[in-house]
Amino acid sequence: MSQKILIVGGVALGPKAASRAKRLDPTAEITLIDQDSIISYGGCGIPYYVCGDVAEPEGLRSTSFHSLRDADYFAREKGFAVRAGTRALKIDRQKKELLAKDLNSGQDVVLPYDKLVLATGSTPFVPPIPGVEAEGIFTVSDIHKAVAIKNRLSQGLVGRAVVLGGGAIGLEMAEAMADLWGVKTTVVEMMDQILPRLLDKNIALMAQRHLEEKGVTVYTSERAESFIIENGKVTGVKTDKRTIEAELVILSVGVRPNSQLAREAGLAIGAFGGIVVNKRMQTSDPSIYAGGDCVEMVDLVSGGSTYAPMGSLANRQGRVIGSNLAGKSETFDGVVGSFIIKLFDNCVAKAGLSLESAKALGFDALAAFVVQADKAHFYPDSGMLYMQMVVEKGTQRVLGVQGIGPNSSSLLARISAVAAILRYKPTVQDIANLEFPYAPPFAAAMDIINVLANTAQNILEGRNRVINQDEFIERFNSRGANNTLFVDVRAAAQGEPLMEKYGPHWLNIPNNQLRERIDELPADREIVLVCNAGSRSYDAMCMLQNSNKNTVNLQGGIGGLKRAGIIL
Amino acid sequence: MSQKILIVGGVALGPKAASRAKRLDPTAEITLIDQDSIISYGGCGIPYYVCGDVAEPEGLRSTSFHSLRDADYFAREKGFAVRAGTRALKIDRQKKELLAKDLNSGQDVVLPYDKLVLATGSTPFVPPIPGVEAEGIFTVSDIHKAVAIKNRLSQGLVGRAVVLGGGAIGLEMAEAMADLWGVKTTVVEMMDQILPRLLDKNIALMAQRHLEEKGVTVYTSERAESFIIENGKVTGVKTDKRTIEAELVILSVGVRPNSQLAREAGLAIGAFGGIVVNKRMQTSDPSIYAGGDCVEMVDLVSGGSTYAPMGSLANRQGRVIGSNLAGKSETFDGVVGSFIIKLFDNCVAKAGLSLESAKALGFDALAAFVVQADKAHFYPDSGMLYMQMVVEKGTQRVLGVQGIGPNSSSLLARISAVAAILRYKPTVQDIANLEFPYAPPFAAAMDIINVLANTAQNILEGRNRVINQDEFIERFNSRGANNTLFVDVRAAAQGEPLMEKYGPHWLNIPNNQLRERIDELPADREIVLVCNAGSRSYDAMCMLQNSNKNTVNLQGGIGGLKRAGIIL
Repeated sequence: MSQKILIVGGVALGPKAASRAKRLDPTAEITLIDQDSIISYGGCGIPYYVCGDVAEPEGLRSTSFHSLRDADYFAREKGFAVRAGTRALKIDRQKKELLAKDLNSGQDVVLPYDKLVLATGSTPFVPPIPGVEAEGIFTVSDIHKAVAIKNRLSQGLVGRAVVLGGGAIGLEMAEAMADLWGVKTTVVEMMDQILPRLLDKNIALMAQRHLEEKGVTVYTSERAESFIIENGKVTGVKTDKRTIEAELVILSVGVRPNSQLAREAGLAIGAFGGIVVNKRMQTSDPSIYAGGDCVEMVDLVSGGSTYAPMGSLANRQGRVIGSNLAGKSETFDGVVGSFIIKLFDNCVAKAGLSLESAKALGFDALAAFVVQADKAHFYPDSGMLYMQMVVEKGTQRVLGVQGIGPNSSSLLARISAVAAILRYKPTVQDIANLEFPYAPPFAAAMDIINVLANTAQNILEGRNRVINQDEFIERFNSRGANNTLFVDVRAAAQGEPLMEKYGPHWLNIPNNQLRERIDELPADREIVLVCNAGSRSYDAMCMLQNSNKNTVNLQGGIGGLKRAGIIL
Repeated sequence: MSQKILIVGGVALGPKAASRAKRLDPTAEITLIDQDSIISYGGCGIPYYVCGDVAEPEGLRSTSFHSLRDADYFAREKGFAVRAGTRALKIDRQKKELLAKDLNSGQDVVLPYDKLVLATGSTPFVPPIPGVEAEGIFTVSDIHKAVAIKNRLSQGLVGRAVVLGGGAIGLEMAEAMADLWGVKTTVVEMMDQILPRLLDKNIALMAQRHLEEKGVTVYTSERAESFIIENGKVTGVKTDKRTIEAELVILSVGVRPNSQLAREAGLAIGAFGGIVVNKRMQTSDPSIYAGGDCVEMVDLVSGGSTYAPMGSLANRQGRVIGSNLAGKSETFDGVVGSFIIKLFDNCVAKAGLSLESAKALGFDALAAFVVQADKAHFYPDSGMLYMQMVVEKGTQRVLGVQGIGPNSSSLLARISAVAAILRYKPTVQDIANLEFPYAPPFAAAMDIINVLANTAQNILEGRNRVINQDEFIERFNSRGANNTLFVDVRAAAQGEPLMEKYGPHWLNIPNNQLRERIDELPADREIVLVCNAGSRSYDAMCMLQNSNKNTVNLQGGIGGLKRAGIIL
């Protein structure tokens, strides 16, 4: 006898689960409902529709072979029925029925199921700021909103825009508006960095500098307090620090899992408000599966729970659910937290935990920071990568990696390699020997990903006593008071100008003279060793290790400082 | 008491091991000898020096901060002594002494050691072909040869060149000569494909087509029999099939480990002729370490032994040896066989085993082949990736992945992720859920690496009965005799022209009509399902699974055929 499968939600996971289940079990009767009239679109592509890279909204709704993914497409090519404009109201788990409302007719309908899939997604959080309902204030939640935003831009109605929230969607939208449409765009972020929780502050600052270079204004540690409204339309945002004029405001301060239907049906809900599922993606009712933005997942790095609303995860989970609906036993074990974003000419990415997240989760961790080219150093046209690896002390376990680099796949390649192995709990030595494919046009013989692990090991073992950019700046700014000596081991061409500029605090001794000039270094002052990238200064620290000098090494060197906008 | 460390060989591993050992043990007295006058160069960069990307040979000998890595550099910055022009002759393991000859003075010298490192590298094999000693015939073995080759090119002495051997170095040299210098270049490869043992034939054929598009002539299954010599200079190559005129011949038919010194000292030598080392990189004499091109390694995929002469491995092994020389206990566990090469506008890469290698090693394996864009399909300017995944039947274990794509890091990103996890023996389901970082400018929500695993799983489980390009061609060429019906499930615009051309053998039924037109398909003929990439034809196969049709699916579709130069 054929089974009845009912799927609630038709954006990413729903259609994937339905298609997969039908391929495996062609006798299944599968129905997918969605409250919207438009289903199965690439929501992650909305910023690229807004900026014009994708000309029409249908571009986000089509297959790679230009078929529009509508009800007819799914019926004919995938073999399941779609009821758009149908809102789920209540699950009767005893009767195995879903009560829903047909939004076109206004009629209630009862849909029976043998197996139910909740793919209800998430909803952007709308902060309770006075005036938030005014015209011109948008979340980036669906195609309808995307069309409305793009219409305003293309009609020339927007000269200035404010993005509330410096997370991924906010920054993608900021780029979309500033880049193609020339809108004067300001990002306002409550936390003290953009991309909070995803990146550590030092890498986030580098990303922020790039946004600023491209004309986007970024205010961190700043909070919107009210909107200025004229004739029902937004004309500005009042923050705790200033007033910013804007004809368009994007709200991108996070999303919340749509778990109410599940909650009301008595299904288990987790700490993040997401539906709890097991590895087979079953809820606490084994006849009901859930996945995508409405569930929370196991964090394979920390072992705890996490909320990771991502279209890619929804697709992969959808396939697992589809298999299990058809009687297989497949698992989705959890997430390692991989992330990537294009910001103008840069790419920012991470996998696993940031140092801040790791510490918040109770890990005793530290970070190694390395600056290195993405190709062999002798190969032309390479781009610089600025990467940080987070490792646990004691175990030497790698917990995460993050970085910023050129807008190409070169950073992706390093991050994807680490993302792939994080669940196997690699140590720094595993990544020191990671067999990153090598040829001069694509990597260094000792690639940055290996060097990060090597550097982390040297720090863990006390051989490389590093300071970060902010620790450097602190020392540098108080150099008169604390008597720190900055020893620049670069060649004279680089080091001498700073020596002239900063007199008794800055000394240039190129590395190739250091062994014979050790006596010039004081034993009673802290010595900050400095070079371009932090590797020659590490060499210098090793040369000085059996002397009586008190040394620390600036991780990432002058290159790292520059990238963060700090010019000495 | 300080230990005496002696290192034989100064290209990649030697200097790395010496530098690392000195940083960890500053009291060690370290001496590195090399028979050459030039040490520490990026040998992998020679093709980029020859083509002009690297202007001077010093570019391959300099650090990223433009220090020339000569004896003075190592003494001053790394703290160890270099004796260039000194050839190792004999190890006296009892006395812990190395007998060497100073090639400048002609004197023998005896160098005592506490620990010895053999970093003797490899030597290009010179095939015993009559005339091979003539002027104009070169191996690509060191900087001196590289300078000699480039001088001939830059002086306009070379209009035509032959490369014997279609391995990595041969192809890089072919590109270098053809691209910048406009030399009419012919590659002659004995095996029936280029990049033998690295790639399977179908991917190798795609790479060959690209070389041919760029004007390089490639002859496979062809063997050089003699050289044509005039006045001591080469003027051509006679193969078993033709005569090719050439003023320059590059011999790149593989390298052999330089293990004679070790062999004569009674150290264990393996099946590949390389020195046998344990995970700590110690030879059968625990006082003697070895690494780089002169050793053989454990293959972490097959569990057997392998020979992998790569500068990147030498560097990583060098660091492990350096650590162990200083009293640490670090390991280099083996290799997974990662490989990447730039070929004009393309990139070719792999990790793990090819299908052919897997079968030769006794694995019962099959391959899944997928064509997909390297970005979200709606994102502009994406490049196509053509990738193949090799999996073991039964265990569903992934043994390797390979592919060809644009000359960017997008293929690298997919290969590096698999390279990273191969040692953990991932199954197809692990890679189906691999958390490849996702944003539309960098990946698809269901990325090709996930789709490869999904496809492999569908093949393994009998749901997707695939044929390869050569099996397709075989059927297509004998379509009259074997009565095969080709069913093209693409839209009419693509499918109808072929239906008109190939009459009763080619039927176009777009996927969205297939469910209602099933009866048009015969039950007594083999049906080959065809689409652009192999995914819609898989959908079609699923639709037909409960009918009485006998179907197979062309993996990679028409797109894969085209990439291999096959136009229907």
